[in-house]
Amino acid sequence: MLSQGNGLLVGELSLSACREKLESRTMGRLGVNVDALPVVLPVNYVVDGDSIVIRTVPGTKLTAAMSEAVVAFEIDDYDPEFAMGWSVLVQGRSREITQKDRLDSVRSLPLPHVTVGGATDRFIEVDLEIVTGRCIEPLEDADSSEQA
Amino acid sequence: MLSQGNGLLVGELSLSACREKLESRTMGRLGVNVDALPVVLPVNYVVDGDSIVIRTVPGTKLTAAMSEAVVAFEIDDYDPEFAMGWSVLVQGRSREITQKDRLDSVRSLPLPHVTVGGATDRFIEVDLEIVTGRCIEPLEDADSSEQA
Repeated sequence: MLSQGNGLLVGELSLSACREKLESRTMGRLGVNVDALPVVLPVNYVVDGDSIVIRTVPGTKLTAAMSEAVVAFEIDDYDPEFAMGWSVLVQGRSREITQKDRLDSVRSLPLPHVTVGGATDRFIEVDLEIVTGRCIEPLEDADSSEQA
Repeated sequence: MLSQGNGLLVGELSLSACREKLESRTMGRLGVNVDALPVVLPVNYVVDGDSIVIRTVPGTKLTAAMSEAVVAFEIDDYDPEFAMGWSVLVQGRSREITQKDRLDSVRSLPLPHVTVGGATDRFIEVDLEIVTGRCIEPLEDADSSEQA
């Protein structure tokens, strides 16, 4: 039943594979509740120790919503031609970086400014608390699988 | 100040541009709260009338969480070489499709099966209630802009 047509099989990624993929990318998506509504939006990020650092648009509701909240952060890749892909999900506490030493440190990270109007940019970090990953690949038909 | 280095400028997409982009893609990310924690995960989808239809992994907490909840759905594209990109965010009520006529109709949509273990697959729809989009492009330095 399930092997018919264009079925996909889901597997899990190891923690080290998740970490490797997180360190190999620069763009992910943040999931957070803003004014009681879920929001998902793309962000540039850098893995810095045991957290993800994001440079935010200053003074937005997003910045407020990410102050001491639990948020989701996701990266993925999918090749439609081969129906193969993977995704990594981070769930962790987020907070604005306000300590001077830490601010000086993260300002040197390779994160582009994002400008809406003006004002000083801000930095948010998300703890790498719960990190999970999965991969998908085509489910082969029983009658099309190779014989050993 | 803001035009220095690798700054990015954010603009808004029109509703018709958002709709066009939604109809041009097959993979997006769903943002939903599962057991009080935000989750973002990739899904295959199809725009069907005024809703997005997703084929889900059966019997998961996700399916339960998406029963009559408000969720977020996002698509994006980003070219790091030119620092240009866009994203579209949908916020709307979601529900499982259970009515027989509608089920028969969505089964014919081009959505791949996703298999974890087995069981019958299910379909979720998300209403296109709040649809917003934005684009980013490099912020040019004043001294590097072309003269008219």
